[in-house]
Amino acid sequence: MASLLLGCITNFFTYETTKSVVVKSWSVGIINRIVQLLIITYFVGWVFYHEKAYQVSDTGIESSVMTKVKGFGYQHNRVMDVADYVFPQQGAGVFCIMTKVIITENQFQGKCAESVKMFSCDTDEDCHKHFGAILSNGVITGVCLKSSNDSKGQCEIEGWCPAENDNLKITPMLNVKNFTIFIKNSIRFPLFNVTRGNFPSTMTSEEIKNCTYHPETNPFCPIFRVGDVLNRTGQTVDNLADKGGEIGINIEWKCNLDLNIEYCMPKYSFTRLDAPFAKNAVSKGYNFRFAKYFKTENGTEFRTLHKAFAIRFDVMVTGNAGKFDTIPTLINLVAAFTSVGLGTVLCDIILLNFLKGAEQYKAKKFEEVSEAQIEASLAQSPGSQLSLKAGIKSSYDSGAISLATSDQPI
Amino acid sequence: MASLLLGCITNFFTYETTKSVVVKSWSVGIINRIVQLLIITYFVGWVFYHEKAYQVSDTGIESSVMTKVKGFGYQHNRVMDVADYVFPQQGAGVFCIMTKVIITENQFQGKCAESVKMFSCDTDEDCHKHFGAILSNGVITGVCLKSSNDSKGQCEIEGWCPAENDNLKITPMLNVKNFTIFIKNSIRFPLFNVTRGNFPSTMTSEEIKNCTYHPETNPFCPIFRVGDVLNRTGQTVDNLADKGGEIGINIEWKCNLDLNIEYCMPKYSFTRLDAPFAKNAVSKGYNFRFAKYFKTENGTEFRTLHKAFAIRFDVMVTGNAGKFDTIPTLINLVAAFTSVGLGTVLCDIILLNFLKGAEQYKAKKFEEVSEAQIEASLAQSPGSQLSLKAGIKSSYDSGAISLATSDQPI
Amino acid sequence: MASLLLGCITNFFTYETTKSVVVKSWSVGIINRIVQLLIITYFVGWVFYHEKAYQVSDTGIESSVMTKVKGFGYQHNRVMDVADYVFPQQGAGVFCIMTKVIITENQFQGKCAESVKMFSCDTDEDCHKHFGAILSNGVITGVCLKSSNDSKGQCEIEGWCPAENDNLKITPMLNVKNFTIFIKNSIRFPLFNVTRGNFPSTMTSEEIKNCTYHPETNPFCPIFRVGDVLNRTGQTVDNLADKGGEIGINIEWKCNLDLNIEYCMPKYSFTRLDAPFAKNAVSKGYNFRFAKYFKTENGTEFRTLHKAFAIRFDVMVTGNAGKFDTIPTLINLVAAFTSVGLGTVLCDIILLNFLKGAEQYKAKKFEEVSEAQIEASLAQSPGSQLSLKAGIKSSYDSGAISLATSDQPI
Repeated sequence: MASLLLGCITNFFTYETTKSVVVKSWSVGIINRIVQLLIITYFVGWVFYHEKAYQVSDTGIESSVMTKVKGFGYQHNRVMDVADYVFPQQGAGVFCIMTKVIITENQFQGKCAESVKMFSCDTDEDCHKHFGAILSNGVITGVCLKSSNDSKGQCEIEGWCPAENDNLKITPMLNVKNFTIFIKNSIRFPLFNVTRGNFPSTMTSEEIKNCTYHPETNPFCPIFRVGDVLNRTGQTVDNLADKGGEIGINIEWKCNLDLNIEYCMPKYSFTRLDAPFAKNAVSKGYNFRFAKYFKTENGTEFRTLHKAFAIRFDVMVTGNAGKFDTIPTLINLVAAFTSVGLGTVLCDIILLNFLKGAEQYKAKKFEEVSEAQIEASLAQSPGSQLSLKAGIKSSYDSGAISLATSDQPI
Repeated sequence: MASLLLGCITNFFTYETTKSVVVKSWSVGIINRIVQLLIITYFVGWVFYHEKAYQVSDTGIESSVMTKVKGFGYQHNRVMDVADYVFPQQGAGVFCIMTKVIITENQFQGKCAESVKMFSCDTDEDCHKHFGAILSNGVITGVCLKSSNDSKGQCEIEGWCPAENDNLKITPMLNVKNFTIFIKNSIRFPLFNVTRGNFPSTMTSEEIKNCTYHPETNPFCPIFRVGDVLNRTGQTVDNLADKGGEIGINIEWKCNLDLNIEYCMPKYSFTRLDAPFAKNAVSKGYNFRFAKYFKTENGTEFRTLHKAFAIRFDVMVTGNAGKFDTIPTLINLVAAFTSVGLGTVLCDIILLNFLKGAEQYKAKKFEEVSEAQIEASLAQSPGSQLSLKAGIKSSYDSGAISLATSDQPI
Repeated sequence: MASLLLGCITNFFTYETTKSVVVKSWSVGIINRIVQLLIITYFVGWVFYHEKAYQVSDTGIESSVMTKVKGFGYQHNRVMDVADYVFPQQGAGVFCIMTKVIITENQFQGKCAESVKMFSCDTDEDCHKHFGAILSNGVITGVCLKSSNDSKGQCEIEGWCPAENDNLKITPMLNVKNFTIFIKNSIRFPLFNVTRGNFPSTMTSEEIKNCTYHPETNPFCPIFRVGDVLNRTGQTVDNLADKGGEIGINIEWKCNLDLNIEYCMPKYSFTRLDAPFAKNAVSKGYNFRFAKYFKTENGTEFRTLHKAFAIRFDVMVTGNAGKFDTIPTLINLVAAFTSVGLGTVLCDIILLNFLKGAEQYKAKKFEEVSEAQIEASLAQSPGSQLSLKAGIKSSYDSGAISLATSDQPI
């Protein structure tokens, strides 16, 4: 009983290693080492060094953006300041700078003639086909308003009157190019609990106030001149100010947290967000309507409608951080080691097929055992295993004398 | 010296391959090939074809959404247009369409009776317990306002007076179902620097203006009818327009960038965002309060309070793009190759335990060498290694003739 | 022909397994098992149990946030309610609570003296250097306004007059600490199509109305007292209410979807978002300007400018969900199995170099075959392979008798 247990334990604490054939051949030896070198180079150079496969990556960046615009422009002979031209006013990550505005003053609820040309009419019937139209300035009543001396009338609408006429030619606020945008962006990588701001903590208040962002000379200044931003997207200020547009300010954080945290700094880039729609003629530019509401002395509400053409800025924050971690390192190391082993697949093919003496190498590498032999040895003397070794035969080696002799007793 | 160096180099350029036992047995041979086939099928079919494990994936999609609502509705006998019912007006990715509004006109700062029933009182003491209440319409002063002929009074509040009474029955703006939402979404996959828009560049302005989104017939039209959207989430317009609600418009980009970029198109889906709260009775629907401020002739500010019931639309953009990359391909290929090798684990178990002649197979596979043998050979003649081969013994093969002969010198 | 085909099929259905050397040595056997145990422990404990490497992870969480603030405060002797102090009013995920406001009433377009001290002047020339200034309250005209009896004048500006004087000392709305924020957050993991809300569906309307969030006693209550939130970020209400600030409310969803879905609950944390900028003296706090527009009886527009100091809350939702999936499980299992195999690398080094009888073990493990032997055997009799076995030589075993005998024919 005790010896059985000891036997078990002895059997357990054994070490099993593969038996190898060492081929002392210059040709296949050199090929083997070159293939291994290539594989190791690939893993060290590309997988580990370039792609940083030893790091775990946090792509779930948390970001908070605060913006502040400064500058003055003229529109309708009035000076516009931040409270007038920025929407929304709270300094969010997505904001618009209004560059042109078509104002329709003193609109009251009532009925009046539509201003849009497509709603011209001769008779009421002409207007009936427009029932339910959504491109008008109000609900189509089905009546054609036509003064006696006019050849063409306009359909009547119910809603805010007078109807907006947005075909006016208005000079946009070109001063927008001198406006500045201050961007405060704080980010956090939750996986590593790392928090960063978009300008260095060594920057003084005075430095920040007086700097302007420039990709080469001032890459960490958080103040951006609107004209510069538009130019970097390849847009002209004139066109954007007139039609409006959408500009993306991308803040990219690519941080290698194995290095000093101070190297974790943002990179800014600027894109035209409506670029994918450049070929479509629809909805060029960017505009929206808003109203200011007033009351007359007797309490009737009226409004001033604004059709605002604006440049919309989307501050988009992306990024990821990498830091050494055992799991990806291990998985990739194992992949690397195993890949080095895979080099033998190629070498085996060469060795066993294309090399002089391939058959001999095959005989060396493979030891063959067939069912017939096993059965024969079992049939002869189940108790004894005398003839087992006799059954050993190198594969592809059907006439080898040294073993053939031991075949005779069978 | 030179011969030593040559020896080293010769030793280095050797090729080491594992020695294999080839079992010519139909049973285990077929099992082996079937297991290998299954593993290869799994990797080719599932891992590589279905899960695209050869691709690197970019999940950090950058997105910019612009929306524009069109349509007219009636509320309080007034025609409401976009400037009246959309909040915020700039056409952001998250916007509300106001469908019902309770208006409390001409509120001035002062003191007046609370309107909410829970603040009814008999004496001032009844109101004292409400000090600091936040569900009232103003700051509770602790006074009970009670006209002499009323049985019940109401606590006095300080703030905007008169207090809002939101128990009014108001017909919601059911026309909302005919409103249309135009969504312009441009995305970018930063890893691959691929930019896409949510409608094909071949779509003309005219096509876009006249189409309405339909999942089958018009899946790329960017104009959505509100009624359709609500229906697809299983909501009735009547209920949502009355209580308000939150609707998610999900734009999903799943792009295989190994194919033509034109196949990288969005897929829309619509969900009710407050679905997880359906079982809770709290905060059904969606509403918010805002005020319009006015001034009397003598400069006193007063306001009109609006309690707006609205349908909030959240345009949520998600997506990922995949593209062939060597690193995942290699890691998965190695995993595949190694897994094919793992088939031998199963076959070994069968071969060495359940097959007829298992003991013989064991003897073939394992060569045993024990400490005792090594020590014996070392003790005999440390200088010579004569008896080493003598120590070779196939495990489980205690009486093999061919080797037993060479055992004799010992 | 038929026999050739049969031969092919027979050859195909063979099973190839590596030939192994079993070393019955206590020392290397124990080392082998300990190394294997360590590797298995690491994989089971860390990789699979702790890091859940058997799961596929969805990090593309979709989130929708709705907020509602309640509470009353005093500012400029007026009671402020939600419609007065929350921006934007729709209850978005990012919102501001205005805590202090500097009001500049009755601004009309015109020309007047600048209020900011840095624009003081003696002569017009003093003002010329300020042309194009953006820190003023309007466009600098270049004229120095100076009353005859004053020693110092102020540059004239064109724009909204009178200019804002933001040096006033105003008591902030300290009541903000008693305000409550209700947060409704519904999330979705698109990969698994799992939707969750931030409070349990078993919570009744009454429970929600009366609870206040507390990390230990009430972790799932969606109502947050502003004072508590600020305290948890280490901020004093007084300072924040006076200067404004940015607070992050982080909702973290870490869901193991292999467990009951009810365990998938949010975790709240609170941070000061401008923490990275604490060392810079610039742009402390948070403020923005907005205006209310009015009209005089004769139709002239004027405005009241508000410089609002506010606490901005960013509700940021992050999270990921994991669920069992075959692909990561398989890849990691293969990595685990292969890693267990890598234990032999260490053991081989010990066995073949540091153990007593290392040379003998080497001779056992490696079988050597050299080009010379192959060539010799080929030269002797290409047809016969008599001497092949003769070429078998254990490496490092140059004088083994048993094989040396068969070397003689060469």
